[in-house]
Amino acid sequence: MTATRTVELEGHIIDSGMMQRAFGIVMDLDGSFEVEEFDVGKHKDKTSYCRMSISADTQETLQEILHELHQNGANLTDPVDAHVEPAPADRVVPHGFYSTTNHPTEVRYDGEWIGVENIEMDCAIVLEPDPDGREEPRAYTKVLNGIEEGDLVVTDEAGIRVQPPERPRDSSGPFGFMQGGVSSERPSESLIEQVAEAIEETKAEGGKVLVVAGPALVHSGGALDLARLIREGYVDMLSAGNGFATHDIEHGLYGTSLGMDMETMEHPRKGHKHHIYTISEVIRAGGIAEAVDEGLVEEGVMYECVENDVPYVLAGSIRDDGPLPDTITDAVEAQNAIREQAHEADMVLMLSTLLHSVAVGNCLPSDVRVVCVDINPATVTQLLDRGSSQAIGMVTDIGTFVPTLADKILGPAAEGETDGDGYYETDGGADDDSDHGGGHPCGGN
Amino acid sequence: MTATRTVELEGHIIDSGMMQRAFGIVMDLDGSFEVEEFDVGKHKDKTSYCRMSISADTQETLQEILHELHQNGANLTDPVDAHVEPAPADRVVPHGFYSTTNHPTEVRYDGEWIGVENIEMDCAIVLEPDPDGREEPRAYTKVLNGIEEGDLVVTDEAGIRVQPPERPRDSSGPFGFMQGGVSSERPSESLIEQVAEAIEETKAEGGKVLVVAGPALVHSGGALDLARLIREGYVDMLSAGNGFATHDIEHGLYGTSLGMDMETMEHPRKGHKHHIYTISEVIRAGGIAEAVDEGLVEEGVMYECVENDVPYVLAGSIRDDGPLPDTITDAVEAQNAIREQAHEADMVLMLSTLLHSVAVGNCLPSDVRVVCVDINPATVTQLLDRGSSQAIGMVTDIGTFVPTLADKILGPAAEGETDGDGYYETDGGADDDSDHGGGHPCGGN
Amino acid sequence: MTATRTVELEGHIIDSGMMQRAFGIVMDLDGSFEVEEFDVGKHKDKTSYCRMSISADTQETLQEILHELHQNGANLTDPVDAHVEPAPADRVVPHGFYSTTNHPTEVRYDGEWIGVENIEMDCAIVLEPDPDGREEPRAYTKVLNGIEEGDLVVTDEAGIRVQPPERPRDSSGPFGFMQGGVSSERPSESLIEQVAEAIEETKAEGGKVLVVAGPALVHSGGALDLARLIREGYVDMLSAGNGFATHDIEHGLYGTSLGMDMETMEHPRKGHKHHIYTISEVIRAGGIAEAVDEGLVEEGVMYECVENDVPYVLAGSIRDDGPLPDTITDAVEAQNAIREQAHEADMVLMLSTLLHSVAVGNCLPSDVRVVCVDINPATVTQLLDRGSSQAIGMVTDIGTFVPTLADKILGPAAEGETDGDGYYETDGGADDDSDHGGGHPCGGN
Amino acid sequence: MTATRTVELEGHIIDSGMMQRAFGIVMDLDGSFEVEEFDVGKHKDKTSYCRMSISADTQETLQEILHELHQNGANLTDPVDAHVEPAPADRVVPHGFYSTTNHPTEVRYDGEWIGVENIEMDCAIVLEPDPDGREEPRAYTKVLNGIEEGDLVVTDEAGIRVQPPERPRDSSGPFGFMQGGVSSERPSESLIEQVAEAIEETKAEGGKVLVVAGPALVHSGGALDLARLIREGYVDMLSAGNGFATHDIEHGLYGTSLGMDMETMEHPRKGHKHHIYTISEVIRAGGIAEAVDEGLVEEGVMYECVENDVPYVLAGSIRDDGPLPDTITDAVEAQNAIREQAHEADMVLMLSTLLHSVAVGNCLPSDVRVVCVDINPATVTQLLDRGSSQAIGMVTDIGTFVPTLADKILGPAAEGETDGDGYYETDGGADDDSDHGGGHPCGGN
Repeated sequence: MTATRTVELEGHIIDSGMMQRAFGIVMDLDGSFEVEEFDVGKHKDKTSYCRMSISADTQETLQEILHELHQNGANLTDPVDAHVEPAPADRVVPHGFYSTTNHPTEVRYDGEWIGVENIEMDCAIVLEPDPDGREEPRAYTKVLNGIEEGDLVVTDEAGIRVQPPERPRDSSGPFGFMQGGVSSERPSESLIEQVAEAIEETKAEGGKVLVVAGPALVHSGGALDLARLIREGYVDMLSAGNGFATHDIEHGLYGTSLGMDMETMEHPRKGHKHHIYTISEVIRAGGIAEAVDEGLVEEGVMYECVENDVPYVLAGSIRDDGPLPDTITDAVEAQNAIREQAHEADMVLMLSTLLHSVAVGNCLPSDVRVVCVDINPATVTQLLDRGSSQAIGMVTDIGTFVPTLADKILGPAAEGETDGDGYYETDGGADDDSDHGGGHPCGGN
Repeated sequence: MTATRTVELEGHIIDSGMMQRAFGIVMDLDGSFEVEEFDVGKHKDKTSYCRMSISADTQETLQEILHELHQNGANLTDPVDAHVEPAPADRVVPHGFYSTTNHPTEVRYDGEWIGVENIEMDCAIVLEPDPDGREEPRAYTKVLNGIEEGDLVVTDEAGIRVQPPERPRDSSGPFGFMQGGVSSERPSESLIEQVAEAIEETKAEGGKVLVVAGPALVHSGGALDLARLIREGYVDMLSAGNGFATHDIEHGLYGTSLGMDMETMEHPRKGHKHHIYTISEVIRAGGIAEAVDEGLVEEGVMYECVENDVPYVLAGSIRDDGPLPDTITDAVEAQNAIREQAHEADMVLMLSTLLHSVAVGNCLPSDVRVVCVDINPATVTQLLDRGSSQAIGMVTDIGTFVPTLADKILGPAAEGETDGDGYYETDGGADDDSDHGGGHPCGGN
Repeated sequence: MTATRTVELEGHIIDSGMMQRAFGIVMDLDGSFEVEEFDVGKHKDKTSYCRMSISADTQETLQEILHELHQNGANLTDPVDAHVEPAPADRVVPHGFYSTTNHPTEVRYDGEWIGVENIEMDCAIVLEPDPDGREEPRAYTKVLNGIEEGDLVVTDEAGIRVQPPERPRDSSGPFGFMQGGVSSERPSESLIEQVAEAIEETKAEGGKVLVVAGPALVHSGGALDLARLIREGYVDMLSAGNGFATHDIEHGLYGTSLGMDMETMEHPRKGHKHHIYTISEVIRAGGIAEAVDEGLVEEGVMYECVENDVPYVLAGSIRDDGPLPDTITDAVEAQNAIREQAHEADMVLMLSTLLHSVAVGNCLPSDVRVVCVDINPATVTQLLDRGSSQAIGMVTDIGTFVPTLADKILGPAAEGETDGDGYYETDGGADDDSDHGGGHPCGGN
Repeated sequence: MTATRTVELEGHIIDSGMMQRAFGIVMDLDGSFEVEEFDVGKHKDKTSYCRMSISADTQETLQEILHELHQNGANLTDPVDAHVEPAPADRVVPHGFYSTTNHPTEVRYDGEWIGVENIEMDCAIVLEPDPDGREEPRAYTKVLNGIEEGDLVVTDEAGIRVQPPERPRDSSGPFGFMQGGVSSERPSESLIEQVAEAIEETKAEGGKVLVVAGPALVHSGGALDLARLIREGYVDMLSAGNGFATHDIEHGLYGTSLGMDMETMEHPRKGHKHHIYTISEVIRAGGIAEAVDEGLVEEGVMYECVENDVPYVLAGSIRDDGPLPDTITDAVEAQNAIREQAHEADMVLMLSTLLHSVAVGNCLPSDVRVVCVDINPATVTQLLDRGSSQAIGMVTDIGTFVPTLADKILGPAAEGETDGDGYYETDGGADDDSDHGGGHPCGGN
């Protein structure tokens, strides 16, 4: 063993699994350790401390081990300043740049530890020694395509400190109960109750709730209950795609989603072109807000977003029809819009969309509350694997989840607000009918 | 083409797909057809008629074609009596015995068409020319292991008439809307509404509802709402397994299912032995009814079955713990018990169990209403593939499906009946507590 | 019934299901029909003919019925010319524009039927009466966002003829065997054999094979066998995303995919940043082709595409890291690139990607051979539902599918070409090591 | 805190996760701990030691905590003898009986620790102080229904020691690489290579391989490759059901599985009754061995079992047709047969059957090597969750897995042995044909 360094761990390092992972890393990577000091927290509210020296055959192996260790919260005892190198060109990072985790991170500069702003996975860290001449150095993340020539990019592992979240000591809170594993065999209504409480708690604390939604929410009949939650102020931001907005508006215009009447489930043949007509009408109006203003759209998620000033990001994808004018078609631009939402969110509900949920999840730090709901366990697993420590996964039917959630938060929908099936009554009168009829884009002849 | 026979089809043979299938069969099996007469139903309430001659290269191929055709409702124009042969030994059918479909079937005996009783897939047909000396011949199905030496078993294809169900002309009824395809992307609450209506309709017509349930119903928190439906008389029979009954009773005894507290979802570690203690307690009592009588079990699906005289079949399986004394451990005996239930049922709800649902489905004729609910689309598909013409499949969460269904039929659970999470309030007093506490089988010391 | 029109159907209208669907449409939409003439094809190679008058209560209902009927191949007996209207503005279609199916389509202009070019679902049809002054009118599809002010857009249903594909009479060809249904319970190796034959047949006929691939292909270890197929000329185009290309190149650079060593499966912790370093290296080189030219990338799918001039489209998405310089980040632009590929393809292999497969499938006419392979049955079902008549779905492991397919087409990989695990041997010597080592972007220090 | 006891842990208690779980248990169950001594293993081959006192508010809570702790390997420092109580009646255990884990377990009797024989989950422990008068006390497991009146059953937690398996120090062996998580996104061929090596290693060490197989193995075309492995001596026992054996023999008799020709995949309609005829033929012969002896069955898994004296257990279920005479229809009797197999097995391959795999898994101690293969991730997850420490899960297609595995162990099938699709060539001659033809049970007329 030619190479040796000393690291230390501190905190609830046993019951958070940090010690276990640290020992595992060293052994997996063919290193060895010698524990120099180990003070175990004697009570459950006492932290523990471990200092150990790590050795490996080569300097390179040691670096790998230290890299992994420090991603798990083990830090060098003799910290040095972080190395920085200027980016040689736009979008080009220096060799050996440090790629971030989604955990709270600090870099050492001039002997001081500076918190990295907007922490997010797989980014570079840019250091500004003297921003605005105020002599208060800043460090923040940048995605690869945001790097500009000359940016001082942190390289190497030295002088960086990561704090992976500890397992909550108290498992009784709404997000404490779910440790690993995704299963449909859990008490659904109790779990929804917990999610409802977490939303209420987040709002009570002044936090922001971001909803990420896919078109299945509309197809399965849950959209109007999400609309209720938006109207009542429980949703602060919406992240979705062109398809979600199209089907939501289609439902408002035609009562269908993907051409199926959502109340009677009859005549599924009638409407397989409704979504295209919907897009065409919104393009004609100039956008969703304009369509709402014109009275073309009178209910639904997008309608409530417009009416209640809830900002939304509609990100485009290659499978889109249209798209709607509101859709951001450039992936980088859309990602930046999503990133801004993610950085503001205190709680995120991911509802039946893998693509948009992953995109949002990529931008989240590890301490944001996340609830992932999908009927496909593989989707939920994939989302939870992204390393949020405060994530709940639920394998359930989005078409019953959202109505149940809305009922738990708001009480049942008032008479005339929605019908028994979770849909708004068509209020009926001739006027309304002729409105819809007159707007029927394929009508006439 | 050396071999030729003439068949005819009658009914809504075009829109039910019969003509299409008939043509397909002949072509797939390398035969040829010549349409001799074709009268198309000119209006939607008129039936069509087709007579055609079928030819094939060999007699054997022709037989295969005719076999397939007649399974699809095409019958020979020159019917002969069915062939019968005595079974050579117990459980041994004659060579070339006719194996049934699950469609209404008639056999020709002495020039008359006799309906086959208790029609069910993959059985032999036994003919009794003169049962009880009353000179009224009977035909009925027998499973292979029920065959007794000397039974007159129908062999060959001749003299048999099958009537596959036609597609309903009117698609507006609760079971008319679902044509092929299983998807989670349907409006869940509307679909549950339809199921609720079908149950109410079945009961209003004096029909019997059979519920087939798996343990996931308990784990996901839907059991007490099924118990409500039983108490209110909407369920006439229950078909389940040892595991379902165990977890249902465990929930009554300990408030847990698989050891998880169904209300708080806390302390999941506490109870992983509860199911074993539950079994042990019921064995000690002598059976489920005895445990109810003793006051050991005071709520849940099994409790309501006992209290409301709803007969249940608990079929054993090789993965059972225990089993409970009520469990029928012999598969043949259990299958016979299931068969009796199936033959009495007018509507079947299959709730999150593949094994028991397939077992029940195997015994059902094709004209019984079936609703299959599971969160795994593959399970729903497999159940619908078994050829019921009146089957609805729904990919949803059983833990929200059953509560929503019960609410739609019965209204929300009354105060004190269940708490907001779908569970009965623990009514609380010291008595109740000590009852439960006293019954704690692993308690003490 | 106030409104009546007469339609006719011709062809194998019974066994293709056209008659059944036509009757079903009329009944579902509350119309009625009167069959005026019905000549059934008396033999299997004779076509049938049906003329019937369709009636409905209102003109609007009748239009809906006729719309559905003509999407299914029933055409008016008294055709008129198609209506056209100029588009009022860029991206804005006239009211009541005709939205296409993916079936071969003709429009009637000046009494003549003109084939619609580049037929594709959910598009508008633009008619040019006199392109280039040659007095040969053209009709072709345009997506909504491609519409330019003044384009003559076909509206209404009149003067349009659609030819849905008939069920092949002969089910023995490689694409004839698969009728409906997706299941993992099919003989995998026999099915792969059929796919291999279809590819060979397509190539023998001078057709083009388009492969659509997702990152799971790399993770599951099938990428190098796809690379073999590209090198040997069995793949003409590749459609993928930034993630696929990144992981494929990562595997070439580091031997890992998502950081797992694909041969030993050891040390999964070591490489979770490899994909970011890979992107960074390719950006530095200026693109994939440049990275290949520099010798940075020496094997894999992208390498073979570059070396063998197989054009590829890498479409961006909001979950991308980087992205690579080759990635088209604008969804509309990427869709157009995919559209060009799709229009050239005679056979499409969709390998473990829902997003890209749907995008390609949206642009395909209904008569292109499609093979969808995924381990998730829901993905395969969703792809097959898009209405290709020549589609095979296979629920299998892409990591064994592609190696088996390559073996069936090319024979086992030669010694030294790949090792027994489907991966190229690391040829070992110091040179190679230093090559890779030298390129190690996070290496050194 | 009124109640306190002292426990100790020893071994690789940090990197095996034991310490973490111990702390978690105490905190989850509202107890507290005070660490009295903690000696951390300073190097990776040194064990650690921890002694701590555990306190709780009530004696009952403390018992619960101690119960959980000792299931995880924390033992009381002041052990006492285990309590035993005689069973009051057949099948009735004493109150508070100890229910086993699947980990190696010892009970203390007369001051000595005795290993519990045939350890298996959810059983009672029976102590025989003086079996056969040899004054060597024995302890062994009994399932609930095996308990006889007067059996001395261990109750309570005292005097019991459990040794949960530690995480292997060296992760490089075939079963060391798989830590948690089930995914289809792993390198399939490399993983199969590892399974092949584990089988070869097990056989080389004189161990026994038990294969658990479901009918999907036959439907997906992998049965003949399993047959090859049996013939070559790589399988020592088979555990399956009536359906597996039926379809395997059907394939031998008719070349079909569920009626589909496994080579051509043609004419799927022809054979949907083959499985019933197969059962009927085997019943007529008197059983599978008799059918093999008569020459009725000439290939396949069951054939090779008979020819190579590989014992098989066919367990019945309520969905069985027939069943075959070899099928054990009583669940308890079948479970006992499975139990005997499980106790002899050193390695278990679970191939595409949840029911039979769970049944076998229930009887396995935690240190047996288990490989679970299924295309449904939920099945694999459920099997791995049963707590084997040496389990590999693989989400893949059984129809390519088994052929690939057989090739890796045995090399490709010899010419004439199977055709390219993994099936035996029909050797063709007139004799063979007439054999099969003559045996055609539905033939004739």
